[in-house]
Amino acid sequence: MKNEAITARNVDFAKWYTDIVMKAELIAYTSVKGCMVIRPYGYAIWENMTRILDGMFKACGHENVCMPMFIPESLLQKEKDHVAGFAPEVAWVTHGGSEKLEEKLCVRPTSETLFCEHYKNIIHSYRDLPKLYNQWVSVVRWEKTTRPFLRSREFLWQEGHTIHETCEQAEAETRQMLDVYAEFAEKYLAMPVIKGQKTESDKFAGAVSTYAIEALMHDGKALQAGTSHYFGDGFAKAFDIQYTGRDNKLSYPHQTSWGVSTRLIGGIIMTHGDDNGLVLPPAVAPIQVVIIPIQQQKEGVLDKASEVYEALKAAGIRVKLDDSDNSPGWKFAEYEMKGVPVRIELGPRDIADNKCVLALRTGGKNSESLDGIAETVKEALENVNAILYKNALENRENRTSNVKTLDEINKKLETADGLFLAAWCGDEACEDGVTEKTGVRSRCIPFDKDISDGDVCVCCGKPAKHMVYWAKAY
Amino acid sequence: MKNEAITARNVDFAKWYTDIVMKAELIAYTSVKGCMVIRPYGYAIWENMTRILDGMFKACGHENVCMPMFIPESLLQKEKDHVAGFAPEVAWVTHGGSEKLEEKLCVRPTSETLFCEHYKNIIHSYRDLPKLYNQWVSVVRWEKTTRPFLRSREFLWQEGHTIHETCEQAEAETRQMLDVYAEFAEKYLAMPVIKGQKTESDKFAGAVSTYAIEALMHDGKALQAGTSHYFGDGFAKAFDIQYTGRDNKLSYPHQTSWGVSTRLIGGIIMTHGDDNGLVLPPAVAPIQVVIIPIQQQKEGVLDKASEVYEALKAAGIRVKLDDSDNSPGWKFAEYEMKGVPVRIELGPRDIADNKCVLALRTGGKNSESLDGIAETVKEALENVNAILYKNALENRENRTSNVKTLDEINKKLETADGLFLAAWCGDEACEDGVTEKTGVRSRCIPFDKDISDGDVCVCCGKPAKHMVYWAKAY
Repeated sequence: MKNEAITARNVDFAKWYTDIVMKAELIAYTSVKGCMVIRPYGYAIWENMTRILDGMFKACGHENVCMPMFIPESLLQKEKDHVAGFAPEVAWVTHGGSEKLEEKLCVRPTSETLFCEHYKNIIHSYRDLPKLYNQWVSVVRWEKTTRPFLRSREFLWQEGHTIHETCEQAEAETRQMLDVYAEFAEKYLAMPVIKGQKTESDKFAGAVSTYAIEALMHDGKALQAGTSHYFGDGFAKAFDIQYTGRDNKLSYPHQTSWGVSTRLIGGIIMTHGDDNGLVLPPAVAPIQVVIIPIQQQKEGVLDKASEVYEALKAAGIRVKLDDSDNSPGWKFAEYEMKGVPVRIELGPRDIADNKCVLALRTGGKNSESLDGIAETVKEALENVNAILYKNALENRENRTSNVKTLDEINKKLETADGLFLAAWCGDEACEDGVTEKTGVRSRCIPFDKDISDGDVCVCCGKPAKHMVYWAKAY
Repeated sequence: MKNEAITARNVDFAKWYTDIVMKAELIAYTSVKGCMVIRPYGYAIWENMTRILDGMFKACGHENVCMPMFIPESLLQKEKDHVAGFAPEVAWVTHGGSEKLEEKLCVRPTSETLFCEHYKNIIHSYRDLPKLYNQWVSVVRWEKTTRPFLRSREFLWQEGHTIHETCEQAEAETRQMLDVYAEFAEKYLAMPVIKGQKTESDKFAGAVSTYAIEALMHDGKALQAGTSHYFGDGFAKAFDIQYTGRDNKLSYPHQTSWGVSTRLIGGIIMTHGDDNGLVLPPAVAPIQVVIIPIQQQKEGVLDKASEVYEALKAAGIRVKLDDSDNSPGWKFAEYEMKGVPVRIELGPRDIADNKCVLALRTGGKNSESLDGIAETVKEALENVNAILYKNALENRENRTSNVKTLDEINKKLETADGLFLAAWCGDEACEDGVTEKTGVRSRCIPFDKDISDGDVCVCCGKPAKHMVYWAKAY
């Protein structure tokens, strides 16, 4: 079975992706390139994601704030690596009303500089530390090539910004938030991720170290799904933020930042979607269960459907009853397209037997008793989540290769994209060399893979320092 | 009792306001004039407000979306009244990275034009109507004079945008949302409001009619606390949005928009605050109850305080236990400054009697049994809310005058600012005349006050058309 409105996934993955984004009504284009409307169904996914993440952040002591969207040019320029990384891709406000501004302002591409300006004003003593702040905002990066969710000029995200007495505390925060992201991705998005460190060349502009969670999409390309940065005291020095320590001396505090964005919605699509459309992990699905009455004009069908609807709603399940005039077949296709995890079909014969048909978006359907239907549905939602995770993990494992040479990589790439685990000497020239000769890029130095004695660099053959995952990437 | 850190309210209301905003740590200034940091305590108030409002919007069928923040100049110009109203105060983006944009973009001051562009793409048939959309975003208006929350260059708000088959439906939506705002203000912010219609000269740029809720602040100046606009089919015509109706003919749909903003936080401060600082309505207070242990080093005090804390938390109350080393007196002043509605004091003698002292931010304290403390606190929170509403209503009533002449207004203004209810002929020259000669402006034509036979215009003495509330305003 395949939805004719969507390009087949194996025929043209990029077109399949765009078809889903449009046909599932996640976004609409606007007249400004790279700026999209996030439509109700797409935004509801983001709302579910933000609610879960916000709870996770607050559970480890973070507070939300809101910084302005504008950064004066002089402020952006205070940290030299940071400005070098971001200035080429910011949008500049030069006029307010009819007047030219004395100093041009950029629309925030990220807010380290704004947080630093604020920290300088509010941090004086070790008693003022740590500050564990986060904000939910949109940011702007003037990208040349854009794709909905994956790379847009404006996108929604959260950016955590914390500041601590010691480098150990800041490092621990950086790693803690990476763990929060990994847990969120795996548990709530059914998206297996690899945790690791970015190479020097791939660090965030201004960071001492950048950590990331990397996910492998269905087509074998990697997606950086979240990042967590440790800044050391570099920003503190650039912005002259000092505090009086427990030793009564002035010290520079240590900082972090970390973020995930609407890009994760793109990740969900490319991890779980199929030829029938979107497939949504139950935790973030705007509609977890759709009830479709069969022969709904017959007496008692809509009454029973409403009864089931109320029972599921009372159990805290996000449920929709579609009693519109469209045919059941049309409705089946529509909610498959929209990725609704569980479908309940309810017709006169089912009702006579006190049953319904329960179909999973991941495949398979069963006749189930209406007694205890809420519990049955909850189990079904858990099943869908487990199946999604298992399928995604299988795809990643099938597409992961341990390699020793660039030839091996190129040979594999002839048939399929994927993840390559290969040793690396730590030299940037070799990192670039791998990309030049194969097309794959370093994704991260994984936490859980160590170099063995005798491992040599996949590029130059000299002694290796790190194991690295390489892949083509979004 | 008076907090020495704050200017007395009756000495300098404006300075008192700024003191509270800063000392209660609601905001911090930034290097961009009119752009503020909303600090954790301020943002938590906004989060509580948005959660309640968002629930109210969704309960009447609205869905959240997210439009881009940029509007191309040509799009802003499509509706002539709208562009005339907003173009003078928008921020213009002229460059992306190092390149000059082909068309300059403004940072949205409001998003009617973006919604219209989107509606044109998605609305074809009456089956596509209505669309009941809302978004939670920030907007930018390049104001010359700025004040935290009340008038800032960037502010947070929600903007509802709906589109309907008929003008009756759109009108009903406009009035429904005004009612939602009034209910929210009165029930959750304890802020009495007057519902009414804006005069022609005071309408939103592009609207057929604008409705507002108006609140009177403690100093006798009015605050426009929320607006709801009916657009007719003016925007639809300007943007060429048409749908095929039930009669199979092409028709223009009818639109509305409505919004409230972080300005409401300014309204809360100026309605309820006193010489000890902020006073927060319990529904939106980040901390509803603070527990302050007395002689906390004595055995059993902190244990009992934790027990009470857990009992209140389990009952869904937002509670904080302050067991820091600061003195009880310092803590009392601190949480009064922060406007925490209820304080529980708990010392060895109270504990021996199975009691605590419960103090209301609005005044008065009592010894209360620890049995059923959660219920006792809930009642106390309701009491605080009722007292706040009653005090605010009394202030408004004391400051409201029915007047027949401009002399009466000027006479009253010699001693105190307030609301003046006076008849008006409907002529804009008279509306301006009232302002020129007294300083008060028209606030609204209230729904519940009708003209009587023989009423004449307060300005020109000709037969009156409407009763109008007049006041100085924020």
